[in-house]
Amino acid sequence: MKRSNRLVVLTDFFLENPRKHIQLPYFVRLCDTTKSSISEDLDIIHAVFQSQGMGYLQRSTGAGGGVKYIPEYSQENNMQFIEELRKKLEDPSRILPGGYLYMSDLLGDPQTVREIGRVFASKFSKMDIDVIVTVATKGIPLAYAVASFLNVPVVIARRDPKVTEGSSVSINYVSGSSRKIQTMVLPKRSLEEGANVCIIDDFMKAGGTITGMINLLSEFDAHVQAIGVLAEADDEEEERIVDHYTSLVKISNVDMRHHTIEIQAGNFVEDLTNFE
Amino acid sequence: MKRSNRLVVLTDFFLENPRKHIQLPYFVRLCDTTKSSISEDLDIIHAVFQSQGMGYLQRSTGAGGGVKYIPEYSQENNMQFIEELRKKLEDPSRILPGGYLYMSDLLGDPQTVREIGRVFASKFSKMDIDVIVTVATKGIPLAYAVASFLNVPVVIARRDPKVTEGSSVSINYVSGSSRKIQTMVLPKRSLEEGANVCIIDDFMKAGGTITGMINLLSEFDAHVQAIGVLAEADDEEEERIVDHYTSLVKISNVDMRHHTIEIQAGNFVEDLTNFE
Repeated sequence: MKRSNRLVVLTDFFLENPRKHIQLPYFVRLCDTTKSSISEDLDIIHAVFQSQGMGYLQRSTGAGGGVKYIPEYSQENNMQFIEELRKKLEDPSRILPGGYLYMSDLLGDPQTVREIGRVFASKFSKMDIDVIVTVATKGIPLAYAVASFLNVPVVIARRDPKVTEGSSVSINYVSGSSRKIQTMVLPKRSLEEGANVCIIDDFMKAGGTITGMINLLSEFDAHVQAIGVLAEADDEEEERIVDHYTSLVKISNVDMRHHTIEIQAGNFVEDLTNFE
Repeated sequence: MKRSNRLVVLTDFFLENPRKHIQLPYFVRLCDTTKSSISEDLDIIHAVFQSQGMGYLQRSTGAGGGVKYIPEYSQENNMQFIEELRKKLEDPSRILPGGYLYMSDLLGDPQTVREIGRVFASKFSKMDIDVIVTVATKGIPLAYAVASFLNVPVVIARRDPKVTEGSSVSINYVSGSSRKIQTMVLPKRSLEEGANVCIIDDFMKAGGTITGMINLLSEFDAHVQAIGVLAEADDEEEERIVDHYTSLVKISNVDMRHHTIEIQAGNFVEDLTNFE
């Protein structure tokens, strides 16, 4: 296989298999070439990925050494995406009765969902995460998007147990905003004890649902390493009951009477700025 | 930008933007090169995509001409994936009380879900599809996977209306297997009238849920162009009420007493064979 062909094959492979450790002999066989040629190919791909702000190839040497694609978006790419998202959400026609915000069109667009996943995965890429957990329904596409970049499975908590998932563990919790008692269940065989978990959801107000998930996960002795929410609502009346989380945007000042809304960047961006 | 770098950038672009029509001047600017160089790059990428059985670049000439990546898996790749899936599902430890089958581990694996999406998208790639519709919960990741390859949005029908989705249309229908009356709702602003729809779900027995979706979609004057289900259950007692659909696998002979199960290839494979 010629270099030009190999570059296409290898680029495809890395994009389809993020964070997967591959030993060089695998690529030598795949491309029917020498180890030194593959090594040069990897240098080229690494350089392009870096210059495009789409991550890097992590090489390791010695016995069992190899290469792994880490899909870590550049801060510039992340900021740009969040800014575009912020502008799209600031459209007043999104305001629904009760001060809610219509986001189903954005959450229904696979490309947008994939980008959201990529942004979260960039943030969490250095953490030790075994599994993404979300609760049905709207968090599901986001959870899969994050999971596809971190190369870990997804587990879905539900409001009601399903016969097709076998025996399950359930908890009752108080929803933060409605103050209603709700149930959340997780199938027993879906999660190993002591797993390192990242919680993903689309929306957080007081944080009742996220707290419910944390409590449910403690039944599995899981360690919550990270929490990511697409949008948080600025709620001055309620004290937030979840401390450490990452949000992409913050919804504030939904004014039903004047039909205006304000969307700010979430703490993802603050953290980036602090880091610089 | 050198050819080797351009090949990495362009391969990434096509994989992230399937079925998106791009005019060549866009790539000329992106890569700061000439039209003839880009044209040669596209020839190389097309040839590699073809030889790997991962689709092709569709070129069009004249005013507004350009290029589009069609992610159409080869029949060999499709057959191989379905065969692997069939074997994984034939594990007797998957049998649950009531003769159901535990599939949440496979549906929780983003790579498997993505492959399922790619296989369906290969089948439906010649059809005129504007939107993927599924019903919460388990069909959701599959719907997004298909949608990401067809580059169309996803709309999710639910069992209960949500305030965050605005006004909605609802229908009642009789579930095929349980004979219970169920409700299904779709937000009004989620779907344009007369849309061409592909229905995706994880499981079909008698077909009550799919029929419910078809009825709900008829309220939007939608045209159901294709129906894809991951697994269908062979049910001799019930007559299937859905006619045209594509399944990847067929579950038959779940024997609770002897703890055995038989999984066959679905009609996706039969259709492939007939086609040859």
